[in-house]
Amino acid sequence: MQNKYQNTNVKELLQKAPIDININIKGWVRTKRSSKGGFSFIELNDGSNINNIQIIADKKLDNYQDEIEHLRAGCCISVQGLSVKSQGKNQNIEIHAHKIQILGTVQDDYPISKGRISLETLRTMPHLRPRTNTIGAVMRLRSHLSHAIHNFFNQRDFCYLNTPIITASDCEGAGEMFGVTTNDKNDFFKQPAQLTVSGQLEAEAFALSLGKVYTFGPTFRAENSHTSRHLSEFWMVEPEVAFNNIDDNMQLAEDFLKSIIKSALTHCQDDMNFFDMRIEKGIINKLENICQSDFIRLSYTDAIDILTKSNKKFEYPLNWGCDLKSEHERYLCEEYFNAPVILTNYPATIKPFYMYCNDDGKTVRGMDVLVPGIGEIIGGSERETRVDIITKRMEQSGIDLHAYQWYLDLRRHGSATHAGFGLGFERLVQFVSGMSNIRDVIPYPRTPGHL
Amino acid sequence: MQNKYQNTNVKELLQKAPIDININIKGWVRTKRSSKGGFSFIELNDGSNINNIQIIADKKLDNYQDEIEHLRAGCCISVQGLSVKSQGKNQNIEIHAHKIQILGTVQDDYPISKGRISLETLRTMPHLRPRTNTIGAVMRLRSHLSHAIHNFFNQRDFCYLNTPIITASDCEGAGEMFGVTTNDKNDFFKQPAQLTVSGQLEAEAFALSLGKVYTFGPTFRAENSHTSRHLSEFWMVEPEVAFNNIDDNMQLAEDFLKSIIKSALTHCQDDMNFFDMRIEKGIINKLENICQSDFIRLSYTDAIDILTKSNKKFEYPLNWGCDLKSEHERYLCEEYFNAPVILTNYPATIKPFYMYCNDDGKTVRGMDVLVPGIGEIIGGSERETRVDIITKRMEQSGIDLHAYQWYLDLRRHGSATHAGFGLGFERLVQFVSGMSNIRDVIPYPRTPGHL
Repeated sequence: MQNKYQNTNVKELLQKAPIDININIKGWVRTKRSSKGGFSFIELNDGSNINNIQIIADKKLDNYQDEIEHLRAGCCISVQGLSVKSQGKNQNIEIHAHKIQILGTVQDDYPISKGRISLETLRTMPHLRPRTNTIGAVMRLRSHLSHAIHNFFNQRDFCYLNTPIITASDCEGAGEMFGVTTNDKNDFFKQPAQLTVSGQLEAEAFALSLGKVYTFGPTFRAENSHTSRHLSEFWMVEPEVAFNNIDDNMQLAEDFLKSIIKSALTHCQDDMNFFDMRIEKGIINKLENICQSDFIRLSYTDAIDILTKSNKKFEYPLNWGCDLKSEHERYLCEEYFNAPVILTNYPATIKPFYMYCNDDGKTVRGMDVLVPGIGEIIGGSERETRVDIITKRMEQSGIDLHAYQWYLDLRRHGSATHAGFGLGFERLVQFVSGMSNIRDVIPYPRTPGHL
Repeated sequence: MQNKYQNTNVKELLQKAPIDININIKGWVRTKRSSKGGFSFIELNDGSNINNIQIIADKKLDNYQDEIEHLRAGCCISVQGLSVKSQGKNQNIEIHAHKIQILGTVQDDYPISKGRISLETLRTMPHLRPRTNTIGAVMRLRSHLSHAIHNFFNQRDFCYLNTPIITASDCEGAGEMFGVTTNDKNDFFKQPAQLTVSGQLEAEAFALSLGKVYTFGPTFRAENSHTSRHLSEFWMVEPEVAFNNIDDNMQLAEDFLKSIIKSALTHCQDDMNFFDMRIEKGIINKLENICQSDFIRLSYTDAIDILTKSNKKFEYPLNWGCDLKSEHERYLCEEYFNAPVILTNYPATIKPFYMYCNDDGKTVRGMDVLVPGIGEIIGGSERETRVDIITKRMEQSGIDLHAYQWYLDLRRHGSATHAGFGLGFERLVQFVSGMSNIRDVIPYPRTPGHL
């Protein structure tokens, strides 16, 4: 037995299971029960892992009666003790405490108890909810997915780009935007300022100089939507690649999704097992299937064909030119193909001005990636590069050409085929965790009426 | 000689220098000159590297007279050709073109010519300026530094956290904030909403559940500052760690800075050589010294002592309790120590409410990391954990306690020593690149009067 106590954390202890070592670990009590024999069993968590480490405290410890016996969920403690092979079924290691120091107690009104609290109730206390198993696991998964995204693009030599948050442009020519003001109304920016809805147009400028770029930042919608799928503030990933056409774009989206899902399955095993057990049964299997399947590529026209020929009764009517609803998208990827589907070549009338017009004059090179359970998770396109055509499309969309001369410049000087897409990051976290409400996959959700 | 043309990029070509291979490369013409012998020499750049690849076009090419001879800076081309060992001094490889296809020409009003354009002029065309050597190099460095930051924390098991952009809290109890509104003034969030100035307080909540967290996102200041060091919108990195005290915090900051600077020196050699040659002579040497030196740790009180005993004439008077000015900070790290300095234990009166009060009742466990040439690059502290003391400090600062009950909760339930700091990301990019104006190190700078 050594004399010095090594600092460690729960994740490391459970992974490496070092036996007969003096360790020091700090964390929060999840549960505590006392046996009649004069022992207390403490489940300790420090946020590094969904699982806890068991601490066994003997009544001979100095502060056993005064402090240890009074410990309850949420208390913060520092433990010095010996790591011992565990006899329990669910763990391979436990700590026999030599000393337990109380760092922080909890008051009587502490709302996170041992009993399960509804996710809805937890939303009223965003500062405390990461102390629960579910939200803790979601936040670790979210962090890992972020990292996997940065790695995917970095390995492919993409340049990470921070497009502006405060902007004068409205990418889609529509959409409800938040205004940005200063209190003394001094017209800080000398023109109306809004919060961005997308960094795509700015990213196009950088793709046409740096080649391969991507953004990953917050975007905003001032829509009065009260659904489990909408946030007023959410994070988006937007790659944009010079010389890529719509086919390259579809391949990139497929490779991208598979790569980051695989990464989560590999590196977040404990949290994924928790989701599979508690949140969505079979989710690991579902995700593994997606990583192994070829994404179906289907034109909008063929999709309409399949949908009209199906015997399925849809709520919304179908005709060539209509926007597909969630029920249609889900039928395609969940029932008809049972695989992710990339729809492409949409009618120009239902897509934004910047998508490349096909020679038929009716369709554009847009694409939506649909996945089972979620529907659209990625939207993108090959971009229109021809000045005359995009100018006409912008005029038709009611866009102020004067404000977009810079965007037209990109078509006038050194233009090239380019394409990109956007991924709603919270939708991805929902998809990989199985969480049904988007408000539970972002630390501090912003929705109408809620700050 | 093979028949198929392999797609590649400039970075890969220059690094691997594969000889006698048929390659296809796409990019933008930087310069073109024609020799009397009937050849054109094209310097091609595709954004993957600061350096260009030289293309040699023979007059025998079909479109030599009609197109190739008319190429000029900014034109976008696709080249198929053979890679050949170069005879030139500055390059090891060049391409003998079999075919050159024009993808995009430039109009006569194209503003980026071969001649040097001032950085100030370039600021008027943020969509085109990444096509220049300087801004291209800055943006690649910026991207790499971002990635190095994520890697540093990921390797140490930190959880990446997206704190909210739209917020009702004002972290510092002061500071000019941007308001967020909707056009129909429908009171979207049912309370006044602002753009965040810091994610620290929200990160503290997650540190006290997940252990080690960091944020990396945009923050905002509605200050009417027109300097080369201030932006209205900038990115901040904010780690926050449970169980860390002020000493751990200083060590983390030192390790962090050294690690990401080393990473840039290792992975951005071509761009760093450019900065050393064109932007700040000797910068590589300066950065290498910083990676090798131990950061000086000095109390505020000792700093005042050194400064008052120096024979230096300062513009601003010095006395214990005053805020240190840039001239004082720079004297300490540039003249007195000639090394980075971490100042700590500041007077409570000049620091925010959340810093831990020392037993002397006068000083708090704040810290500022000062580096030569920039001054303060990191600010942080060990956080106050005692409910009674922090409540008093908040009252003294005029903070609405009612709105901060959640923050006090963190001290009431399962509290622990914790510490963190903030790094202004653009200041870091300035420091590592040597760029003197902060507007040149962010893609689309936002400053008073400029969107």
